[in-house]
Amino acid sequence: MEDGLLKKLDAMVREKGYPNRSEAIRDLVRKTIVDDEWTDASGEIIGVLVIVFDHHSRELSSRLLKKEHHWVGGILSTLHIHLDHDNCLEVKVIRGKAGEVRDFADEMISMKGIKYGTLVRATAGVAL
Amino acid sequence: MEDGLLKKLDAMVREKGYPNRSEAIRDLVRKTIVDDEWTDASGEIIGVLVIVFDHHSRELSSRLLKKEHHWVGGILSTLHIHLDHDNCLEVKVIRGKAGEVRDFADEMISMKGIKYGTLVRATAGVAL
Amino acid sequence: MEDGLLKKLDAMVREKGYPNRSEAIRDLVRKTIVDDEWTDASGEIIGVLVIVFDHHSRELSSRLLKKEHHWVGGILSTLHIHLDHDNCLEVKVIRGKAGEVRDFADEMISMKGIKYGTLVRATAGVAL
Amino acid sequence: MEDGLLKKLDAMVREKGYPNRSEAIRDLVRKTIVDDEWTDASGEIIGVLVIVFDHHSRELSSRLLKKEHHWVGGILSTLHIHLDHDNCLEVKVIRGKAGEVRDFADEMISMKGIKYGTLVRATAGVAL
Repeated sequence: MEDGLLKKLDAMVREKGYPNRSEAIRDLVRKTIVDDEWTDASGEIIGVLVIVFDHHSRELSSRLLKKEHHWVGGILSTLHIHLDHDNCLEVKVIRGKAGEVRDFADEMISMKGIKYGTLVRATAGVAL
Repeated sequence: MEDGLLKKLDAMVREKGYPNRSEAIRDLVRKTIVDDEWTDASGEIIGVLVIVFDHHSRELSSRLLKKEHHWVGGILSTLHIHLDHDNCLEVKVIRGKAGEVRDFADEMISMKGIKYGTLVRATAGVAL
Repeated sequence: MEDGLLKKLDAMVREKGYPNRSEAIRDLVRKTIVDDEWTDASGEIIGVLVIVFDHHSRELSSRLLKKEHHWVGGILSTLHIHLDHDNCLEVKVIRGKAGEVRDFADEMISMKGIKYGTLVRATAGVAL
Repeated sequence: MEDGLLKKLDAMVREKGYPNRSEAIRDLVRKTIVDDEWTDASGEIIGVLVIVFDHHSRELSSRLLKKEHHWVGGILSTLHIHLDHDNCLEVKVIRGKAGEVRDFADEMISMKGIKYGTLVRATAGVAL
């Protein structure tokens, strides 16, 4: 590996607290594998959808449920946390084809009333 | 301990798979401590509320949220699982005074649309 | 219904906050259905296992994982909450045959290091 | 807004399924606010840490617990899902100062045995 790159790698090892270079490199390779799983729209992946919304918005709650209803097999579990009197955070673990999970997440995040939403690429871990 | 009682204890040890009598007795004592925490209506406890409902019932979802809203500090976390196209299971971990948690659970369980509900006595574990 | 029983029913309606007698009776019938699901050891049920333990006990954590490993298909989701510096609460939603879920729960609860454990009878809701 | 930018905005509205431009713009602004909360290392934020690991690795489980122990106040809840016989997915909702949450996540993700880990920027929603 060329010197400049090596320095950046070592900086990353230090900053993130990896025990050594190998562990850091292994992590980079794994991230690439997960990214590839997501690139193939028909690949089986695990997505984690994080949304923040005001739970006073009643209509939103109904609309969320309605959309989720079509995903009964895919949403493994939802964790719901009341952040304060107004705001809720929901984390949904979703299993499915990359393309479908992405579409579903886009639909959810773009809904009126959702303050913040993001889809995290995770993996079923089989290929790692 | 008298003979009849000892036999019952040994049967319990065998049936539940305790490693020995002491562990089984320790468990019985701990259950009594938790029961006592719940008997004192102003004692701080942890309750786990389990409810099953049909998630097509939109109004129910709004009414649940409305009731929970007043418990923002008490509901530590909710786990939501879609059981099938119709049925949802929710597990709510609640921290608060025994009397208030019991009243809240009664209110939730008695709501129209809730198919099944039960409040589990748990504990913050401090006294065990 | 005889007078004495009716009075008790009305007391229950008041105490638990049911909107009317029918809703209270419906709940009692549903509880019986769920109990029946659990009586049949080969019936498909949902169980919610609640355990409290001290998370300093390292060996316990390994032993829990080992036991859960054989239940990979059955444990739908676990919710873990750190109650304080020592105590953790875990809620496990389990799907399976009543007899097997009961055995699994007994095994978990009787383990050394578990301070408190209880298995809650829930249901997949299909028959309600 | 200049024409080229407007076209890109409209493409985003179509692709993500936003009802209109305003909703899409509102989302972009909110993302910036959340990013700002995270830029200020002492700002109070919500982070969602997603990790995938092989749960046969016993030592890992102990090491995870040890690290989490110091974060008792910050980890609001953990959702644990057994993906298959080997792989587990854990989602941890963490509240704290941006810098501290980032350091904690880096420590967790860089641990030997963690196959995949990523920290999601979320928010307590107050400023949105």
